[in-house]
Amino acid sequence: MARIICAGLGPGDPDLISIRSDRAIRAASHVAYFRKEGRKGQARAIVEGMLRPDAVELAMEYPVTTELPFDSPEYNDALAQFYDLWAERLAAMPGEVVVLCEGDPFFYGSFMHLYTRLKDRVAVQVIPGITGMAGCWHATGTPITWGDDVLSVLMGTLPEQDLVAHMQSADALAIMKTGRNLPKVRRALETAGRLGDAWLIERGTMPGERVARLAEVDVADCPYFAIVLVHGHGRRPEVLE
Amino acid sequence: MARIICAGLGPGDPDLISIRSDRAIRAASHVAYFRKEGRKGQARAIVEGMLRPDAVELAMEYPVTTELPFDSPEYNDALAQFYDLWAERLAAMPGEVVVLCEGDPFFYGSFMHLYTRLKDRVAVQVIPGITGMAGCWHATGTPITWGDDVLSVLMGTLPEQDLVAHMQSADALAIMKTGRNLPKVRRALETAGRLGDAWLIERGTMPGERVARLAEVDVADCPYFAIVLVHGHGRRPEVLE
Repeated sequence: MARIICAGLGPGDPDLISIRSDRAIRAASHVAYFRKEGRKGQARAIVEGMLRPDAVELAMEYPVTTELPFDSPEYNDALAQFYDLWAERLAAMPGEVVVLCEGDPFFYGSFMHLYTRLKDRVAVQVIPGITGMAGCWHATGTPITWGDDVLSVLMGTLPEQDLVAHMQSADALAIMKTGRNLPKVRRALETAGRLGDAWLIERGTMPGERVARLAEVDVADCPYFAIVLVHGHGRRPEVLE
Repeated sequence: MARIICAGLGPGDPDLISIRSDRAIRAASHVAYFRKEGRKGQARAIVEGMLRPDAVELAMEYPVTTELPFDSPEYNDALAQFYDLWAERLAAMPGEVVVLCEGDPFFYGSFMHLYTRLKDRVAVQVIPGITGMAGCWHATGTPITWGDDVLSVLMGTLPEQDLVAHMQSADALAIMKTGRNLPKVRRALETAGRLGDAWLIERGTMPGERVARLAEVDVADCPYFAIVLVHGHGRRPEVLE
């Protein structure tokens, strides 16, 4: 009978994996992970050197990533079939499978689509992880929220006017799924009067980490998983003179 | 010369501490943590059994917690003096001090007030942690955000009309600092039409964890650190029939 453990990997530095995920990954006889076809995959890269030499690897290759519009029926059908197939395969495994998941599995994670298909059929354990956005705010060296700050987490895929409204009403911002949406995200931040305080973080906590003021970045060339942050400045006990 | 390491502890289960924090905590010769006067303190409780037998413990006891309004000048002055004092003490330590911090230190954490006072004077390293709210959404067994969902993180200390506006405009909600604010938070959720989907989580990932529908909870008796969650239901590839 299959038993699925989804191990949250955190933002990318293997040292930021939790004790429980680390233990599960190192003990795993079968390890599954998502990746783009033909790539090694970020999740697999994070656990490099941690797997048992005899671990069986199951690469779950997305049938489509950015080739189709994410809100098209074709994209939906292709991914639904993909998740159905892998849910079947994992449920049919004779023992324990550890599924790797970057960041936190319950926070915009791909594993959730397997989880909804598996949770009523087999035993599924999900181990939390530090989110990618937390890795990014640590990369800036500045706390993201203080006191009563409102933090809004936004996707760059949202319509521009929705982005502007949320950017105006929140104190701190984390904007994910940037990539080709970055020019729109930048315009929205400018409209909302927040561009001057926005940072772009690539590969937070990983080799090649980059932190730059968004206003100074070439928005035409930005990785999909770069995150934009605006820090809050909420209530805090002032330093006494 | 002092060297400060702030170790994020995550949501409460010691198994959810990161490899790096775990290592720092177990090796520490000096360990500092915040607590309410006369209490053991939640941060210290999380690391029970992990400290070196000869570790020197520095309990940083808040001069005030809920006795004064948090937005009063007296509260501000008392806490500012407290953080100034401990920043001085830590900066004067002859070697390394590990400061424990529940959740993620850069996400509404008390350590940030020491960090701003110390970072230009001594070496400070901050290790991320899994947030308390992530521990709570894992306790519900349901992903918090999908697809393009907007997540807003709100403090129960905000004015009621602000809470309502944010509750209406976001898809997923995490509301912290509830406690005596819970009746207000509940009214705001009802006004925003979200009360039916709201969960109250106490002690997420810890012994005594409790998950209940907020509508069914006695709001007069709620711990300060309970968190209210409303899950998002965003775009996802549908299960094919």
